[in-house]
Amino acid sequence: MPKTTALKSIKSLVPLLDRVLVQRVKAEAKTAGGIFLPESSVKELNEAKVLAVGPGGLDKEGKRIPMSVGEGDKVLIPQYGGSPVKVGEEEYSLFRDHELLAKIKE
Amino acid sequence: MPKTTALKSIKSLVPLLDRVLVQRVKAEAKTAGGIFLPESSVKELNEAKVLAVGPGGLDKEGKRIPMSVGEGDKVLIPQYGGSPVKVGEEEYSLFRDHELLAKIKE
Amino acid sequence: MPKTTALKSIKSLVPLLDRVLVQRVKAEAKTAGGIFLPESSVKELNEAKVLAVGPGGLDKEGKRIPMSVGEGDKVLIPQYGGSPVKVGEEEYSLFRDHELLAKIKE
Amino acid sequence: MPKTTALKSIKSLVPLLDRVLVQRVKAEAKTAGGIFLPESSVKELNEAKVLAVGPGGLDKEGKRIPMSVGEGDKVLIPQYGGSPVKVGEEEYSLFRDHELLAKIKE
Amino acid sequence: MPKTTALKSIKSLVPLLDRVLVQRVKAEAKTAGGIFLPESSVKELNEAKVLAVGPGGLDKEGKRIPMSVGEGDKVLIPQYGGSPVKVGEEEYSLFRDHELLAKIKE
Amino acid sequence: MPKTTALKSIKSLVPLLDRVLVQRVKAEAKTAGGIFLPESSVKELNEAKVLAVGPGGLDKEGKRIPMSVGEGDKVLIPQYGGSPVKVGEEEYSLFRDHELLAKIKE
Amino acid sequence: MPKTTALKSIKSLVPLLDRVLVQRVKAEAKTAGGIFLPESSVKELNEAKVLAVGPGGLDKEGKRIPMSVGEGDKVLIPQYGGSPVKVGEEEYSLFRDHELLAKIKE
Repeated sequence: MPKTTALKSIKSLVPLLDRVLVQRVKAEAKTAGGIFLPESSVKELNEAKVLAVGPGGLDKEGKRIPMSVGEGDKVLIPQYGGSPVKVGEEEYSLFRDHELLAKIKE
Repeated sequence: MPKTTALKSIKSLVPLLDRVLVQRVKAEAKTAGGIFLPESSVKELNEAKVLAVGPGGLDKEGKRIPMSVGEGDKVLIPQYGGSPVKVGEEEYSLFRDHELLAKIKE
Repeated sequence: MPKTTALKSIKSLVPLLDRVLVQRVKAEAKTAGGIFLPESSVKELNEAKVLAVGPGGLDKEGKRIPMSVGEGDKVLIPQYGGSPVKVGEEEYSLFRDHELLAKIKE
Repeated sequence: MPKTTALKSIKSLVPLLDRVLVQRVKAEAKTAGGIFLPESSVKELNEAKVLAVGPGGLDKEGKRIPMSVGEGDKVLIPQYGGSPVKVGEEEYSLFRDHELLAKIKE
Repeated sequence: MPKTTALKSIKSLVPLLDRVLVQRVKAEAKTAGGIFLPESSVKELNEAKVLAVGPGGLDKEGKRIPMSVGEGDKVLIPQYGGSPVKVGEEEYSLFRDHELLAKIKE
Repeated sequence: MPKTTALKSIKSLVPLLDRVLVQRVKAEAKTAGGIFLPESSVKELNEAKVLAVGPGGLDKEGKRIPMSVGEGDKVLIPQYGGSPVKVGEEEYSLFRDHELLAKIKE
Repeated sequence: MPKTTALKSIKSLVPLLDRVLVQRVKAEAKTAGGIFLPESSVKELNEAKVLAVGPGGLDKEGKRIPMSVGEGDKVLIPQYGGSPVKVGEEEYSLFRDHELLAKIKE
């Protein structure tokens, strides 16, 4: 039986330095009333949930620069950029802490 | 019933680091006398209102660099740049503090 | 009656950080004898008047870097660059302090 | 008999400064049931195993900046970049420590 | 009578920061014997005379960085670059101090 | 008899600052059994021998930054970059110390 | 009689900051036996003689950074770059100290 080396769960990812692992919030594909919308009317959202954060980058004295966000935060991500990660059918992204635009309060 | 993940209000956005959330002031689409102007005669304005500001970027010693503007300020924004944010039909932008050109006194 | 949001006076602009608000000096459109020159013989001048200056940029210790020019100075501006600002029919520009080339003594 | 100068084993490579030698984890070319998959259905994985790490880059005082990963770690590597190394039929890559995206816990 | 705003004399220019105002030395348009040369045989020279120098740029502690050249020096300027200034029919250039290549002793 | 100014021996080269003089290891043009291989089957190797190293670059306090490699080391060089030097029919390269990828233990 | 402003001797050039004035060593245009070679078989050499050096650039504390080479040194120059200077029919180049690749011992 072949051993599989592909990532089994996104939870096994521990971001390095100042990186932040996020999952983009999916746009609704159906209306509040439950009607499914055609693909073309579903817009990409730049809202994402923080799944894990790195320990922070190092400043010139070797101290960790504190992260701006934490696990569980909802954030606004830039329209372009980030490193894509795919686990099964799900897509995730890794951003540098300073690339995130805003936190989203709920 | 589907849960919606799209941003419900721009007020839920808390800019990170040195970012400034602004909304561009809309050009008048009608004259002082109330006559609606055709679309083509309405110019884009680079004037914007500050809706929220981040805590400031970090200098090399880890101290916050003070922001140049505050919530409620009116500012002149550059013609290009900024990160667009859309909530419903309204458009907003996020700029870095140092990208803003001038405050507008009233 | 619609409220107008467009900039009413250039005097309401307060440059941020190390920015300098200038107005380009207009080339004479008529000769010393009062004869109006055709448009094509009027050259763009790189001479400008300083209308307002920012408080200065911040150095790494958070201190203001002194500005090289002050309100009322006449300056030589570079041929390209600067951020354009339009108020009514008048055009202005914002430059960073270090982009200005020279002061003009009179 | 000609002496051969080509690299005989990847184990003879000792990364310099902040470089990290990794080998990309190969995607399964057959299913769990042992059926071999056609080439086109095998996706490139961005998961890699750390084979060796450099001593760390030097900061401005000449001190070593600690590495984020160590030998034996599994890491997520960026989709592009890295310096390729080929030993026989096997392919390896060298990344700078800060280019690695995340550690993979097992 | 129209007031003229154009620069009347190059002597009114006071370079800012580390800028150096120079005038390119003109190539001879006639031979030693007084014969005028056709335009095409006159080569551009990269030799220039320093007309005025700025007070020097500011280092990180806010101190002036000393200028390498002074008024009256003859210098070798780079083939490209510099900001052109025109006063009447004469052309001048502004360079940053560090862009000048060499002093010319006579 | 004309005096020749061309480099007579690679041994006369003393690298400056952080530069490293290397010679790429040549790929075997014949098999272990002594059969010569056609040109197209001989691959470029990125393995090189260090012939000489500079004294190291200068840090901001004017101290030498130690070199990572020394004369006689075998190193892995990047696929692109380096400054080529030709002495007679032999080709050499100069790299900056930090461009070298790894040492090769034997 | 017209005064000439063109550079009369390369010896009048005093390099500024970290610049190095060099003259490329000319490739032999004839063989050891005195036979003149056709132009196409004469290769450009990257070997040059140092004619003059600047006082060194300034570090952040305003101290001179020592030069790596001195007048009379023979050096290996990069294949591209440098600022060309022409005096009469002779061509020279100015390089920054750190652009020079190696000294050549004789």
